[in-house]
Amino acid sequence: MGDAGFEAIDAAVREAVGKQGFMKLVGAKIDRLAPGEAVLSLDRREEVLQQHGFFHGGVIAFLVDNATTIAAGTLIDRPGQGCLTAEYKLNFLAPARGERIVCEAQVLKPGRRMSVVEARVFSHESGEPKVCAVALATIAITEAKPA
Amino acid sequence: MGDAGFEAIDAAVREAVGKQGFMKLVGAKIDRLAPGEAVLSLDRREEVLQQHGFFHGGVIAFLVDNATTIAAGTLIDRPGQGCLTAEYKLNFLAPARGERIVCEAQVLKPGRRMSVVEARVFSHESGEPKVCAVALATIAITEAKPA
Amino acid sequence: MGDAGFEAIDAAVREAVGKQGFMKLVGAKIDRLAPGEAVLSLDRREEVLQQHGFFHGGVIAFLVDNATTIAAGTLIDRPGQGCLTAEYKLNFLAPARGERIVCEAQVLKPGRRMSVVEARVFSHESGEPKVCAVALATIAITEAKPA
Amino acid sequence: MGDAGFEAIDAAVREAVGKQGFMKLVGAKIDRLAPGEAVLSLDRREEVLQQHGFFHGGVIAFLVDNATTIAAGTLIDRPGQGCLTAEYKLNFLAPARGERIVCEAQVLKPGRRMSVVEARVFSHESGEPKVCAVALATIAITEAKPA
Repeated sequence: MGDAGFEAIDAAVREAVGKQGFMKLVGAKIDRLAPGEAVLSLDRREEVLQQHGFFHGGVIAFLVDNATTIAAGTLIDRPGQGCLTAEYKLNFLAPARGERIVCEAQVLKPGRRMSVVEARVFSHESGEPKVCAVALATIAITEAKPA
Repeated sequence: MGDAGFEAIDAAVREAVGKQGFMKLVGAKIDRLAPGEAVLSLDRREEVLQQHGFFHGGVIAFLVDNATTIAAGTLIDRPGQGCLTAEYKLNFLAPARGERIVCEAQVLKPGRRMSVVEARVFSHESGEPKVCAVALATIAITEAKPA
Repeated sequence: MGDAGFEAIDAAVREAVGKQGFMKLVGAKIDRLAPGEAVLSLDRREEVLQQHGFFHGGVIAFLVDNATTIAAGTLIDRPGQGCLTAEYKLNFLAPARGERIVCEAQVLKPGRRMSVVEARVFSHESGEPKVCAVALATIAITEAKPA
Repeated sequence: MGDAGFEAIDAAVREAVGKQGFMKLVGAKIDRLAPGEAVLSLDRREEVLQQHGFFHGGVIAFLVDNATTIAAGTLIDRPGQGCLTAEYKLNFLAPARGERIVCEAQVLKPGRRMSVVEARVFSHESGEPKVCAVALATIAITEAKPA
């Protein structure tokens, strides 16, 4: 895909995500978009933690939810198509104690009707990334409804 | 279990959850606790939605994450034990368009080392509950570390 | 759906499953088909066990794989449509020590493009069913390719 | 770990798997064992296929079930410990049309009480490996019961 082509997709994705109230509430950012990839991150602050001072599992799930759907969205190539999270599974590997968490999502298998996306979540502790969760997601590709 | 026994667990769970910054940020409430069960709910407001005006998938995942872990926590019966979300899988069945979402979690199989918990999420639309997500979770039961 | 309508689906499903070499090798049977439901069972014999004498987890997964896809297949209503297992998640709750295992699959949410199906696997021990596994599956509904 | 140490584990794993009636029935082989890794494979034959001539999804699930548990088993380091599949999730990416399927499992996070294992299944088509399924598993580490 030419850069020009991806620029339009990049802008469309950022515009859609910019309209998510929950993205703003959580305070997550899009760090990187590329064809088949999305990286989201979130800085540590009291409001996104659980009772032991780790990032809340639900925050990690939110990053996974959004990053996997966005990664699938970067490969959409027909007008009117959209992406809908169908399902995902998430394994927590270690408490996220760091100063920042980063979710990297990568499309494993793009599909006409559904795409399979993998994600890794890293907790950055004193700058060192440490895997704290892994996930596998199925994203449904929706079509524009005929008028 | 006698009511007196569960009262102490109920109080301990509410105290722990009360310390979760993310629970407060999202604005979710514990509607019901019983041995092996937890019900959490969240009212609709702009900050918990995605770009089409539905509850964000990440909000639903957060409710599932917390409700399944809390449900497992209601069955903890030895001092020093705790609960840690090991993994879950979530299927979205329909957009959550309602005025309120409710997550009901139920322990299917309590274990000494891990418990399996099922959850249903309902979107209340004009008062009518409609299933919008289902989930299956594994919760690790942790032991107090020997001194 | 009228009985007449379901008779044709029932016959088509049994014919397709009858062509599965692996179904024959394992020795599983279709116990029941109804709109949105499928029940498969398998009797205990040495060849389907693991090293401790329990039904092998892979046998249970096979029943889940087939029963969930078949359950979705009972709701197919357009010529040329088919079913393809997209993904599933399986939790083992207890060793399957019984004389027979039975997998009951039920469509939670039928869809035009994908259906979500739930399954419970029971180990029959001295005639008593005991849940030994639970699963959640996504089944893709395929369309006939245009000529 | 020294080679001598792993030789004993290798032998113990092969002995345990050699007692699985279902492993023999399916006809799968252990291709490789290493600390934290297991590779299993299966040649194409009529008895392991579904109605369209692809490897049956249940066969792929069996390989995932066994390979992930065996991979976790290669890291067991205390007498009396064992491995039990707690749960897994499996995404099918493409029909397995090849002459042989190979499942590669790798421990992502070994644990004292549970290990998280990732698996990829490849369909070898005219010698070329093509990913046909991915999986994420949780394996429980069991302890010898005190006498």
